[in-house]
Amino acid sequence: MREFTSMGMAIDNGKLKILDQTLLPHEKKWLSCENVDALIEMIQRLAIRGAPAIGISSSLLLAILAEHGHSREQLIKDGVRLKESRPTAVNLMNNIDRVLEKVSENDYPSSVIREAESIYLEDVDLCEKMSRLGADIIKKNESILTHCNTGGLATAGIGTAMGVIRTAHEDGKNITVFVDETRPLLQGGRLTSWECGELGISHVVICDSSAAMLMKAGKVDRVFVGSDRIATNGDFANKIGTYSLAVLAHYHDVPFYVVAPRTTIDPECFSGKDIPIEERDASEVLGITGGLCSYTWAPEKSPAYNPAFDVTPAELVTGWVLDTGVFTFNDLQHANWWMC
Amino acid sequence: MREFTSMGMAIDNGKLKILDQTLLPHEKKWLSCENVDALIEMIQRLAIRGAPAIGISSSLLLAILAEHGHSREQLIKDGVRLKESRPTAVNLMNNIDRVLEKVSENDYPSSVIREAESIYLEDVDLCEKMSRLGADIIKKNESILTHCNTGGLATAGIGTAMGVIRTAHEDGKNITVFVDETRPLLQGGRLTSWECGELGISHVVICDSSAAMLMKAGKVDRVFVGSDRIATNGDFANKIGTYSLAVLAHYHDVPFYVVAPRTTIDPECFSGKDIPIEERDASEVLGITGGLCSYTWAPEKSPAYNPAFDVTPAELVTGWVLDTGVFTFNDLQHANWWMC
Repeated sequence: MREFTSMGMAIDNGKLKILDQTLLPHEKKWLSCENVDALIEMIQRLAIRGAPAIGISSSLLLAILAEHGHSREQLIKDGVRLKESRPTAVNLMNNIDRVLEKVSENDYPSSVIREAESIYLEDVDLCEKMSRLGADIIKKNESILTHCNTGGLATAGIGTAMGVIRTAHEDGKNITVFVDETRPLLQGGRLTSWECGELGISHVVICDSSAAMLMKAGKVDRVFVGSDRIATNGDFANKIGTYSLAVLAHYHDVPFYVVAPRTTIDPECFSGKDIPIEERDASEVLGITGGLCSYTWAPEKSPAYNPAFDVTPAELVTGWVLDTGVFTFNDLQHANWWMC
Repeated sequence: MREFTSMGMAIDNGKLKILDQTLLPHEKKWLSCENVDALIEMIQRLAIRGAPAIGISSSLLLAILAEHGHSREQLIKDGVRLKESRPTAVNLMNNIDRVLEKVSENDYPSSVIREAESIYLEDVDLCEKMSRLGADIIKKNESILTHCNTGGLATAGIGTAMGVIRTAHEDGKNITVFVDETRPLLQGGRLTSWECGELGISHVVICDSSAAMLMKAGKVDRVFVGSDRIATNGDFANKIGTYSLAVLAHYHDVPFYVVAPRTTIDPECFSGKDIPIEERDASEVLGITGGLCSYTWAPEKSPAYNPAFDVTPAELVTGWVLDTGVFTFNDLQHANWWMC
């Protein structure tokens, strides 16, 4: 197995290592992940998160298990269990399906290892392509608003929406980034702010509910977000709060882009209604939960509603920035538009 | 001086007592407030908050100081300092002005004490009137969304928007309340949830960014919020995130009401642009700050933007629920519409 290192995962001495994102930005702790139980636990408590990252890390673990002597039957069983760890992101299902398809080949486990390596390397390449296409949309001195974390921690490469921002920054466009803190799990306030700091990108953290007044004040030039699953009609699921931003951007005439590899499109999903939305524990809303501090500020008995994602309808999207190009609402009339 | 007790403040044995709201819902600690320095400190760290409550408590303290021998000059000096403790809520300025106008009367300090007592009792009465008018708008089995805390803790009476909700509940309308947690200071998640629990009102705490998807799903029948200052053209300031909700309600055709006593209208403020917006410390956005838990989750060096309020333009408001009646956009054409 080749060695890899990205911002949030690595293959190191033949083992899968995961940077525990629940401890960031205050502590950098790499966890060894040796079996499917461990990875499912890490995915569910969000030690590793981001639609591409959970799919890629799952593929890499399956390849390591195959290399270490897992039978084909064991590998299929483990793959099926991993696919069920989070329901919304399609990358997880897609990547694992790609790996499992190689189980029946004659040169197993090499076939599986090659496929997992390809998935990793492809993601690096997809990130570069999307980021280039997205960055070309951004003009000098613009302010960009983003939600959640879609950068190096969420992918194997430089990221999706955050990759666009990073590339525009590296192009010398002198951008400023408004970082939605992204309640309840604060991936913006904790992780995107940290990535911006590491990369020297000018940024300002805001509460999610401040985005509207910034747009009204003309301080937001564009919004870029990632996606966990895109339906063939262009509707897409992303972190809770994305739909809210899309409506606000529409009202204020701020261009709104979703950035994702074409593999985030689910050909079996014809509209946003078909995307399953994960509902998580009330405790995440009633306080903060995580590796470094857990505290409940609400009355313990208060009920809470905690959808992890929401769905943004295609009509609110200015552009779909895929690795294959930037698509507009009109482009969606073509069959398999994302391949055109 | 008469004795008073509301949910968040009291006159007890001739002393002003403040329930420290930063410790709620986990701890009920009453603080004695004996001078202006102490009250300014409590107002600024939000131990007492809510536009009516900070104005009323300031008036009561001035009356106590007058009773205890403060000269007229000392009282005016103290009043001026209290007025500067928070800039957005007009009630604070109005109430203190009313008290200070009585300083020159012959029966000082009685004149000042009477005025402060009137301010308290009037607020109780105003809350009842608004709440009745607002509750009559609500139909059986409706779901109401609210933001921040506008109940017994924020007023001397039963509240503004929360008073409406409480009255509808007591009318037996079987309502459910979606409680915006209201980042950064979580007055919804900590205080409104607690008031709902105490009053037996069915409620669900949500992250602020979930309101949009609930509206899209048709789960929100009406939005009720409070206000810190209303301009004569109907624009109003309220807790950050209110403008966001107003845009979302407009987009989803959800009726949106602001509830406030007519004294919240500032006759010298002709539009929202004239309302000063308090900007608070970045630390409130970069983590949680408060009496029971302080924790910074963001990188310490990350900049943050922390406006405490935003302004909602009149065209997004379905109704202004004042103590004098429920007004619509058309009513705003009349001079002094709030008195009509």
